[in-house]
Amino acid sequence: MNKHPFDAAMHLEAAGSDRPDTWRGETSPAYWNMVGPFGGTTAAIAVRAVMLHPLLLGEPIALTVNYAAALAAGVFEITATPVRTNRSTQHWTIELRQTDPVTGSSSVVTTATAVTAVRRTTWSANESPMPQLDVVNAGPRFSFDNAEWTNRYDIRAARGGLPEDWDGAEAGGDDASLTQLWVRDEPPRQLDFASLASMSDAFYPRVWLRRPVRVPAGTVSITTYFHAGSAQLAQSGSTHLLGQARAHVFSNGFFDQTAHLWNEAGQLLATSHQIVYYKN
Amino acid sequence: MNKHPFDAAMHLEAAGSDRPDTWRGETSPAYWNMVGPFGGTTAAIAVRAVMLHPLLLGEPIALTVNYAAALAAGVFEITATPVRTNRSTQHWTIELRQTDPVTGSSSVVTTATAVTAVRRTTWSANESPMPQLDVVNAGPRFSFDNAEWTNRYDIRAARGGLPEDWDGAEAGGDDASLTQLWVRDEPPRQLDFASLASMSDAFYPRVWLRRPVRVPAGTVSITTYFHAGSAQLAQSGSTHLLGQARAHVFSNGFFDQTAHLWNEAGQLLATSHQIVYYKN
Repeated sequence: MNKHPFDAAMHLEAAGSDRPDTWRGETSPAYWNMVGPFGGTTAAIAVRAVMLHPLLLGEPIALTVNYAAALAAGVFEITATPVRTNRSTQHWTIELRQTDPVTGSSSVVTTATAVTAVRRTTWSANESPMPQLDVVNAGPRFSFDNAEWTNRYDIRAARGGLPEDWDGAEAGGDDASLTQLWVRDEPPRQLDFASLASMSDAFYPRVWLRRPVRVPAGTVSITTYFHAGSAQLAQSGSTHLLGQARAHVFSNGFFDQTAHLWNEAGQLLATSHQIVYYKN
Repeated sequence: MNKHPFDAAMHLEAAGSDRPDTWRGETSPAYWNMVGPFGGTTAAIAVRAVMLHPLLLGEPIALTVNYAAALAAGVFEITATPVRTNRSTQHWTIELRQTDPVTGSSSVVTTATAVTAVRRTTWSANESPMPQLDVVNAGPRFSFDNAEWTNRYDIRAARGGLPEDWDGAEAGGDDASLTQLWVRDEPPRQLDFASLASMSDAFYPRVWLRRPVRVPAGTVSITTYFHAGSAQLAQSGSTHLLGQARAHVFSNGFFDQTAHLWNEAGQLLATSHQIVYYKN
């Protein structure tokens, strides 16, 4: 049986017993974006490095990934260090580096931090009910020229899909940057923390919807909070998640985006926030 | 003239010319919280260390602070390293350490990352208009027993103040965890990036409003996006900001919080997100 392309993209090998925090991986052409790998897969690789670590305590609660530079196609090294382990929480710093094949010099391309924790059952409540939408009523499958990664997902917008006319006519009013969409791996794949981290970044730039002008835009930093444990993710299976994204403000070269991801049972699995660079 | 207590809390001294990324500081009793310094001041110190650095490019855009352990009262060292400098953005990793006076061993108490950038004037739009509220109609000044830091702010709730009855009767419906409040330094102080980072954490735990039961709760990780430049912050003066906070979900020991901060002119200066530990 062939590996799922997402699992192939997540493949990491230990760098050696003298460097227990470090793994080697390779960028995946199957998840290529316009000028580097899809940022969702980079976030997922950070999750994967943490979860591979023999000293791991608990499961992911929070992840912040800073895209310092576009990854070049090819190999990279990722180091995930548990800098502080408490009774039920653990703090991680993560660094992804690449070596220039010509100069031989190594440089930081991504930094990240993560928190993992042992969850205990407590009083719980969801204040963000899933919008009443059905995947069968959603739009056609999304794909985007020059973004191979979009072919690795089945994404169907219920609201706020890509503009049909790039005419620069500004959308106005409340929720002008709101997108609601269904998303799953293509082919379908059992949900886990890595794929959830990746799907949290599966929304095209809000500025394209808001203006709409196809200006260059790219995520600078993304933070994802995981609100479910591995058992809940397993129960979510491989069916679509409902994703919702909106911006709060576009201000002199940077806008923000807040996203929610629910499974079909209506459980809010993740909330995710990012700050995105855009050109005028 | 005496220093403002916030400036005193922000005081950092260079650790030495052989360690150009490192500064020494001391926790401030004036901003003490229940079991350590107010987390807002720790975030502010991270901003301060970055902004003191001679290699700084631009101004803060994004900041993530992970509270790995409560700071002990006393001295600390903070290291802010510019790990990647691009044409208009710069990426920072930050670590705050303390040395155990008995064992002499040093350990990580806080990790952080930051992005700074040179902003350029672009098309801009605010999708989060300020709620129509007036500070003169707000409630009485907030203070909280065993939380000295609350005396360093003038905080007045317009909606969702601290519960009057800790009776455990759950608030229901939409926006059950919503708080809107006015906040400024006390005594008043000119707004800057450090104080804005601090005020982003000036909301009491959402779980107290939602249940309401005074369970132990503490921020694990906070991410703040700055949507204004220093000139806009200067224009904001020293008057109140309007802050709004709400949770999206409370799930097995962790809830999230999203906050907005506007100045009196209605400009959205910052959005901030955190994940918070709570006990049952």
